[in-house]
Amino acid sequence: MNRPLLAVVGLGLIGGSIAASLKSRGAPWRVRAVDRRRSTLDYALRRGLADEATDSLAEGVRDAELVVLATPVRSIRDLVVEAAGWLVPGQVLTDVGSTKQTIVEAARAALPPGVAFVGGHPVAGTEHSGVESAVPGLFEGRPCVLTPVADTPTEAVAAVTRLWEALGAEVVCLDPATHDRVFALVSHLPHAVAYSLVNTVAPRLGSREAGLAGGSLADVVRVTRSPAAVWRDVCMENREPLLWAVDQFAERLAELRAAIEGADEAALDDFFHRASESRAALWRV
Amino acid sequence: MNRPLLAVVGLGLIGGSIAASLKSRGAPWRVRAVDRRRSTLDYALRRGLADEATDSLAEGVRDAELVVLATPVRSIRDLVVEAAGWLVPGQVLTDVGSTKQTIVEAARAALPPGVAFVGGHPVAGTEHSGVESAVPGLFEGRPCVLTPVADTPTEAVAAVTRLWEALGAEVVCLDPATHDRVFALVSHLPHAVAYSLVNTVAPRLGSREAGLAGGSLADVVRVTRSPAAVWRDVCMENREPLLWAVDQFAERLAELRAAIEGADEAALDDFFHRASESRAALWRV
Repeated sequence: MNRPLLAVVGLGLIGGSIAASLKSRGAPWRVRAVDRRRSTLDYALRRGLADEATDSLAEGVRDAELVVLATPVRSIRDLVVEAAGWLVPGQVLTDVGSTKQTIVEAARAALPPGVAFVGGHPVAGTEHSGVESAVPGLFEGRPCVLTPVADTPTEAVAAVTRLWEALGAEVVCLDPATHDRVFALVSHLPHAVAYSLVNTVAPRLGSREAGLAGGSLADVVRVTRSPAAVWRDVCMENREPLLWAVDQFAERLAELRAAIEGADEAALDDFFHRASESRAALWRV
Repeated sequence: MNRPLLAVVGLGLIGGSIAASLKSRGAPWRVRAVDRRRSTLDYALRRGLADEATDSLAEGVRDAELVVLATPVRSIRDLVVEAAGWLVPGQVLTDVGSTKQTIVEAARAALPPGVAFVGGHPVAGTEHSGVESAVPGLFEGRPCVLTPVADTPTEAVAAVTRLWEALGAEVVCLDPATHDRVFALVSHLPHAVAYSLVNTVAPRLGSREAGLAGGSLADVVRVTRSPAAVWRDVCMENREPLLWAVDQFAERLAELRAAIEGADEAALDDFFHRASESRAALWRV
């Protein structure tokens, strides 16, 4: 039996780790690396991450049972449109972008009949980027969200699910709009807040005062280690849900501000207790 | 030569750790534990944290070269006023409260001539509280801010400095207003923001969605583990500087919000880059 062919388009941290993880787990996939950079392809072949490699998208998707777009989130829509010209009925296209609704809509508009798109978002990563940072096991025990819609063929969802389960991930399905709202809350908003905090605090501190920060500021500062371009792109791609989340947050901050200004002990108690109870209930920390 | 007598008023995490650290470092101080709870005093004597113990403030401060008020921040002002009735010229009073201006002003108003007050704030702690959580070494390598003012006698500052250096802390002097502004920025604001974030996100997530959170939200959630009463009290004691800090933060968040709403890539790039540069420059992470 022939091993199915997986085309990974974009060999960065995520794409490279998909390839590395399949290899290290001995999963029954043939892996084709597709990237514009010859040096990346050479690295992937040399390290045994891929069985074959090409810098042509047309050649890259040919005959692949499954094509994973693993480029930065903002380039995925253009790549869907470009790939649409080369994909044929029966092929399945998926992606790893951290926002979903705009990508799912672009795929629906661009892909020919018979080519299925299943939005994907592995919740995994490090603050590093590039194929040299790829690690097998990056997805093990981590969630991977898939965002099929009403007319997504069941067998396409099953194929993408098999891939992520082969990588050790736990597949969760959400509709694209819910995905974007949930990740605005659990990821994009915390980053927006952390970057805003650093931009508030840092300009007002000398290095001596910065040294007085305890572990709490350090915990928040750590959140701002991702490449700046990643968050610019997330902000551009998930604008409406993120604006909604920012506004919800601003309301809570205003509630706290009013309690401080009014020296309202009961309101302050309530505010801090609510957070403690949620923390214990939802995150058990 | 007699060892100088140190009275530690309030044997919680900080007071207990002062006593435990002096003992474990073999520092030349006699330690008197002063606490309202008999069980706390018994524990301190049994564990060898203190040489003597009393539940009377009047007896507790008698003949002590140095008295450290180590109770929760909101009770310190009242305790200063109460201790003022028993202290005599030549004695030195200090504290460990995490806000300073209101305490320094209360001491200036209440203490008799010849009794010096030196505000203190050891920047150390854990999320635990109570004498059972006291650990020797809590202050080692950590900053301790002292906030002498123009008329604080040099020898009083020197005595308090000797105590903290005996505990392994690095003494930094700031005026009380600067202290409160700096800690509003590096500690109180990050906590206000983290609690507001939890109160925004948690009510909108089920446990399945909460499980999708990556490490960044976990880092921010971790900041909300302190007892709720601690932050209620800090908000009450450091109102003006904290309101100022919250307003500065709200401006930065509004700046980010406008850039998202306007899909302004250059502004987003600038925002995230500024944070990355400050992070690298100030905290080297």
